[in-house]
Amino acid sequence: MTGISPLAPDAFPELPSIDGLKIATFKAGVKYKDRTDLMIAIMDPGTTIAGVFTRSSTRSAAVLDCQAKLGSEPSGPAAIVVNSGNANAFTGSKGEASVERICNQVHESFGVSTNRVFTSSTGVIGELLPEGKITSAIAKMAPGDSNLQNAAEAIRTTDTFAKGAFKVLSTDAGQINICGIAKGSGMIAPDMATMLVYIFTDAKIDQAYLQDTLSELNERTFNSITVDSDTSTSDTVICAATGASGIDVSGSTTFSDALHEVMQDLAHQVVRDGEGATKFIEVSVTNAETDADANLIARAIANSPLVKTAIAGEDPNWGRIIMAIGKSGAMADRDKLSIWFGNILVAEKGWVASTYSEGLGAAYMKNQDIQITVDLGLGSGTAKIWTCDLTHAYITINADYRS
Amino acid sequence: MTGISPLAPDAFPELPSIDGLKIATFKAGVKYKDRTDLMIAIMDPGTTIAGVFTRSSTRSAAVLDCQAKLGSEPSGPAAIVVNSGNANAFTGSKGEASVERICNQVHESFGVSTNRVFTSSTGVIGELLPEGKITSAIAKMAPGDSNLQNAAEAIRTTDTFAKGAFKVLSTDAGQINICGIAKGSGMIAPDMATMLVYIFTDAKIDQAYLQDTLSELNERTFNSITVDSDTSTSDTVICAATGASGIDVSGSTTFSDALHEVMQDLAHQVVRDGEGATKFIEVSVTNAETDADANLIARAIANSPLVKTAIAGEDPNWGRIIMAIGKSGAMADRDKLSIWFGNILVAEKGWVASTYSEGLGAAYMKNQDIQITVDLGLGSGTAKIWTCDLTHAYITINADYRS
Repeated sequence: MTGISPLAPDAFPELPSIDGLKIATFKAGVKYKDRTDLMIAIMDPGTTIAGVFTRSSTRSAAVLDCQAKLGSEPSGPAAIVVNSGNANAFTGSKGEASVERICNQVHESFGVSTNRVFTSSTGVIGELLPEGKITSAIAKMAPGDSNLQNAAEAIRTTDTFAKGAFKVLSTDAGQINICGIAKGSGMIAPDMATMLVYIFTDAKIDQAYLQDTLSELNERTFNSITVDSDTSTSDTVICAATGASGIDVSGSTTFSDALHEVMQDLAHQVVRDGEGATKFIEVSVTNAETDADANLIARAIANSPLVKTAIAGEDPNWGRIIMAIGKSGAMADRDKLSIWFGNILVAEKGWVASTYSEGLGAAYMKNQDIQITVDLGLGSGTAKIWTCDLTHAYITINADYRS
Repeated sequence: MTGISPLAPDAFPELPSIDGLKIATFKAGVKYKDRTDLMIAIMDPGTTIAGVFTRSSTRSAAVLDCQAKLGSEPSGPAAIVVNSGNANAFTGSKGEASVERICNQVHESFGVSTNRVFTSSTGVIGELLPEGKITSAIAKMAPGDSNLQNAAEAIRTTDTFAKGAFKVLSTDAGQINICGIAKGSGMIAPDMATMLVYIFTDAKIDQAYLQDTLSELNERTFNSITVDSDTSTSDTVICAATGASGIDVSGSTTFSDALHEVMQDLAHQVVRDGEGATKFIEVSVTNAETDADANLIARAIANSPLVKTAIAGEDPNWGRIIMAIGKSGAMADRDKLSIWFGNILVAEKGWVASTYSEGLGAAYMKNQDIQITVDLGLGSGTAKIWTCDLTHAYITINADYRS
C-alpha cells in the first residue's frame, strides 16, 4: 500500500515559522531503515502546554507520563519527543522506564526539566522500545529551525502523506502563527491506527485557558472523526504556545476560532488518509432530541460497516442509514425524520421522498466528498462526524500478516 | 456469492415433527423467481406464543404488529407468516396496511383470529410490500405436515445454507420435541442482514413463563452474536408451544436448558453464515468487575474491525485485543489482565507472557474455530460473544451495487 490516498491534498502547506520553537529530526532506526523516525521540538521558557489523550484503559506508558505532567509550572524550556516504529504500549514497567530514560536524556542534552518533557511513541504494541537508539540519537541532535514538515515526515508510519495545517492571525498587536502537524489513520505497520497531533503557536496563552480551549475544540474535531471505530492506545493531541510573539490571546475567541480551523483541517486530513479510503464522508445530524442523541446517531451511521461499504460501492442505499439510526439507541420517530444526500431529499414522513429517484442518488454517490444529513424533527440537538468509506484496501492493509 | 460458507454444518438436521403444527410454503414471487419465498405455520388452539424483537427505533411494520399482539389470550389457532424478498420496513402507513391485509387473509383462509397472526418480512427496506402476491398465495396454501426444512428454505435470502436445530427431551410423562429454524447474516440482497428465528415445541407451556424464558435465553444466544455490529429493523425470535404432547413444562429447567441448546445452535449457525466468514470466533471474558463490563469488553473485541481482519489474515495480533479492551469503556487494569488464544497464554502482568511465542500464536490462528479469552483479574463478571472474521468477501457482498 504505497500509493498516496486519492483524497490527499495536493501538497504539504508552506507553514510559517513559530518563534520560540526549534525542531530536529533523526534516523534513529527504531524500526524503519533509511528514513527519519524521531523528532524533537524544544520550546522557549514560558511556553504553556495543553494536551488531550486517548481514554483507553490500556493506554501507553508515554501517554500516562504526559498526563501526569500536564499543568506543571511553565518554568524553563519544554520539549516534545516523538518516535515512530514502536508504540511502547503494553510493555509494563519496562515501558515506563524507557520513557524515563528518554526524558532524562532530553534533560541532559538540552537542560529541559524532565517534568517539561512530553513523549509519544507510535508503532507496534507489546514490543519493548529500543530506547537506547533513541537516547543516543537525542545526544546527537541539534534542534535548529522550526521546520515542521520534517517533523511531520518523521512521525509518519504508514500514513500515505504527511499532514500539516496553519493559520496566520492578524491582531492589533501584531501577527500570530498557529501551525499543526498530525499523523494517523494509515496503519501503523503492522499494528493499529494511532493519531498524533502537535500544534505550535507563538501566541502567549495562560495554561488553563489553553487546556480548556483545546479540550473543548478536540470534541468537535479529533473526537468527531472515525475510520473504523477502533481507538488507539496512544492517541495524543498536544498544543504548545511559546508566547514568543508577546501577544496574549488568553480568552480570545478570535484565537480559539483560528485554532479550531487548524484542528479541523488536520482532523479532516487524518480521515482523508483513512485506510483504503476513496470517499470523504460528512455525517450531519440536526434537530435530535439532544446533542448526545445527535452524536449517537451520527456515530452509528459513520461507524456502520454496511453504510460504509455501500458508499464504497457508490450505492445510494439509504435503507442502511435508516438501520443505523434505528440501532443507535437514540430517540427517533420514523414519521418525523428525514434524510438528505447533499441537497437531495431522500426520505421523509416515514417513506421515500416523492421527489427522490434512485438515479438522483446514484449520480450523487459518484462524488468524492459525500454529505449525509439526518433531520430528526424532534428537538435542537446537532452533531457532525467525519469518516471515510470501507473498501477492499482496508481489508488488504489490515489482514496482511505482520511479518 | 453463491458458495456455501466454509463454516456450514454438513447437512440440515433431520428434525422430528411437532404435533399441533402444520406448515406450507409457496412461490409467491415477492422478489425472487423460481424459489419458495413464503411460509405459513398454523398451530392448534391453545398454542402459547412468546417473542423477542429488534430494539431498533426504526423497526418494521411487522415487528410493531407482533409486539402489540404478544400476550393475548391463546384462544383458537395461531399462525406465523414469513416472506422473504421485501422487509416492509420504512414504508409508513402503507406498510402497516399491508400487514393488516395479510392477517385478514390468514383469518379468512384458516379461521385464525387476526390477533393470533404473527408476520415477518425480510428483504429490501423502503420498498412497498407487494402484499397482493402474498394474500393471493395464502388463499391457495394448504398447510399439512410440519416440514420445517421447507420453511427454513423459504425464509432464506442470501443465506448460504438453511438453518435448523432440534432437541428431543425424554420426561417421565413422555417425549417432548423442540425444533427451530433461522435465517440470517447472509446479506439480504442487497440490503441488510436480518435475523429471523422460529422455534416450535409440542410442550405445554404457560405464556408468561415461555416469554420470560425466551427473553432470558435470548440475551445469552441471539443477543450474544455479532457479524458486523449492525442491527436489523426486522430481527425476530418467536417460540410457539402447541401443547400437543400434553406435557406441561412450565417452570422446568430441563425444558429451558433444552431450549437454550436449540437457540445456541441456531445462533452459532447464523454466525457461521456471517457474510464472508472463514473463521468462527468465541470471545470469552472472565473476572471482569461486573457482567456488564465483561459484555462491553467482549463486544468491543468481537466488533473490532482490526481484530476481525487480523483473524482473517491468521495474524495472532494480540495488540489489537489490548486496544479493544482499552476502548471498551469497561474497567481494566493493564497489569492484572491476561489473554489466551485457546489454551495458549499470550499476555499477562502488563506484558507478553514469557512462555508465548509468535510461532505458537500463528499456528493457533490456522484453526477454523478461534477462542479468545480475556481474564480481567478484577471481579467475577463474565460474558461470551460469538462472531466471525472480516474478509474481502464481506466487502464484495456489501459494496456491490444493488441493481
